[in-house]
Amino acid sequence: MKLLRYGPKDQEKPGVLDADGVIRDLSGMIDDITGDTFTGGDLERLEAMEFEDLPEVDGNPRIGPCVGNVGKFICIGLNYSDHAAEAGQTPPDEPIVFMKATTAINGPNDDVEIPRTSQKTDWEVELGFVIGKRAKYVGVAEALDYVAGYCTVNDVSERSFQSERSGQWTKGKSHDTFGPIGPWLVTADEVPDPQVLDLWLDVDGDRKQTGNTSTMIFDVATIISHLSQFMTLEPGDVVSTGTPPGVGMGHKPDPIYLKAGQTVTLGVEGLGMQTQKMIQA
Amino acid sequence: MKLLRYGPKDQEKPGVLDADGVIRDLSGMIDDITGDTFTGGDLERLEAMEFEDLPEVDGNPRIGPCVGNVGKFICIGLNYSDHAAEAGQTPPDEPIVFMKATTAINGPNDDVEIPRTSQKTDWEVELGFVIGKRAKYVGVAEALDYVAGYCTVNDVSERSFQSERSGQWTKGKSHDTFGPIGPWLVTADEVPDPQVLDLWLDVDGDRKQTGNTSTMIFDVATIISHLSQFMTLEPGDVVSTGTPPGVGMGHKPDPIYLKAGQTVTLGVEGLGMQTQKMIQA
Repeated sequence: MKLLRYGPKDQEKPGVLDADGVIRDLSGMIDDITGDTFTGGDLERLEAMEFEDLPEVDGNPRIGPCVGNVGKFICIGLNYSDHAAEAGQTPPDEPIVFMKATTAINGPNDDVEIPRTSQKTDWEVELGFVIGKRAKYVGVAEALDYVAGYCTVNDVSERSFQSERSGQWTKGKSHDTFGPIGPWLVTADEVPDPQVLDLWLDVDGDRKQTGNTSTMIFDVATIISHLSQFMTLEPGDVVSTGTPPGVGMGHKPDPIYLKAGQTVTLGVEGLGMQTQKMIQA
Repeated sequence: MKLLRYGPKDQEKPGVLDADGVIRDLSGMIDDITGDTFTGGDLERLEAMEFEDLPEVDGNPRIGPCVGNVGKFICIGLNYSDHAAEAGQTPPDEPIVFMKATTAINGPNDDVEIPRTSQKTDWEVELGFVIGKRAKYVGVAEALDYVAGYCTVNDVSERSFQSERSGQWTKGKSHDTFGPIGPWLVTADEVPDPQVLDLWLDVDGDRKQTGNTSTMIFDVATIISHLSQFMTLEPGDVVSTGTPPGVGMGHKPDPIYLKAGQTVTLGVEGLGMQTQKMIQA
């Protein structure tokens, strides 16, 4: 299933994309798409339905973040060897873990703010996944059982705030709107292998990033097992798995960064596309 | 007011400590103590009451974290010049910001887990505060208006996970139970100056940390203003402001760390005391 949330910010309703690409309203079936959706039997109930029996959603509503009430927004850094090289870093021995503020979460096509004083706002297309059941000390072999689904993420980053403002990356990763997720949460049954997906990102129509999840240093299963050694992952937690080469920071001969008025489009194979206009905060 | 939450984990009820130190049940007045408590007029309603009219809570219930449904758990690192020195670091030019997983939040007297494989679980008594209204790009002069109240925090830390496991501190700060907060949320009107508070921490009755918030490098108002340049603070977000000297990592001639069976007690002046037994995860 391609689950989604549509409607005004903070008033999103649950929906599902049918086989013809039409949004069907799920609000008669479930209240929202959150961690609770994955644990109480709702998914199984939805899977047993004929979506054609559900009301069509009229018009062209705003699409919200594909999961609501997110407890943690966890990211993996430098997880593509080519990206590590462009960032001037050696590939890490184990996953680099950091957190984005959950207040950064944004709809996939909402405007993205360039923070005040920012000179180095950058893009990062990533494969994201959403946790479906509580994970603490889980092994790699069973780790994919803990995934509810996958989604496209733009891990928007302010490089000066990230690296030039007294250690720790949090400051550069957490600005409001820096976490577009969606459009859809594609349930795990429709993504049999998360390590074969193309990723791409354009700025004003120019291709900047091209990659495939096959070149991730640590795959999704390893990431889940690793994270679960350090914290408990809860249903609805979002994890973003790192970005392939082509970010603005790595541009040669000089870095290039986003400006108000520019448009970023990005996607992950099978998980849908995002389009964001950059605006000044 | 000294607000608190009591009862079994994840089923806490709201309460308030009366002038005689007796817990009074607030569940007839409000559902819980969360960010919503500070924005919808509940605080003003409670302040107008005579607590003696509320039911006494019988027995000696478990005390939960002093605020529920926390969106972000943000910490400041190396914020006491003496602690920076014992950690072998130069004092930072601006606040070091990192996040703990919200799943680490724990009641003040609940057992604290030593993670599997951990050799370096350490303690950090800290002054915490809880945000009372949405803060984005706020100035230092107005910053304290955004505080709902203050609480004692133990920023439990695994030093090897924090610093020897591929960058970023998140891994060492986020284990379940690593964030005891409470016992009380002392409303800001009862803490006219957060920069004059004594802090202390004992391990098995031996005094390990002694400090006063007057020696913080960045005061509470500066921290709020600074954070609000990088992310929006929401009601119910918890911020912990760094620890004074005396952590295990800084012990001379050799570091000392916590073992299962030990007891940690800590407190911040006027904000109440915590007692935690260490257990193996």
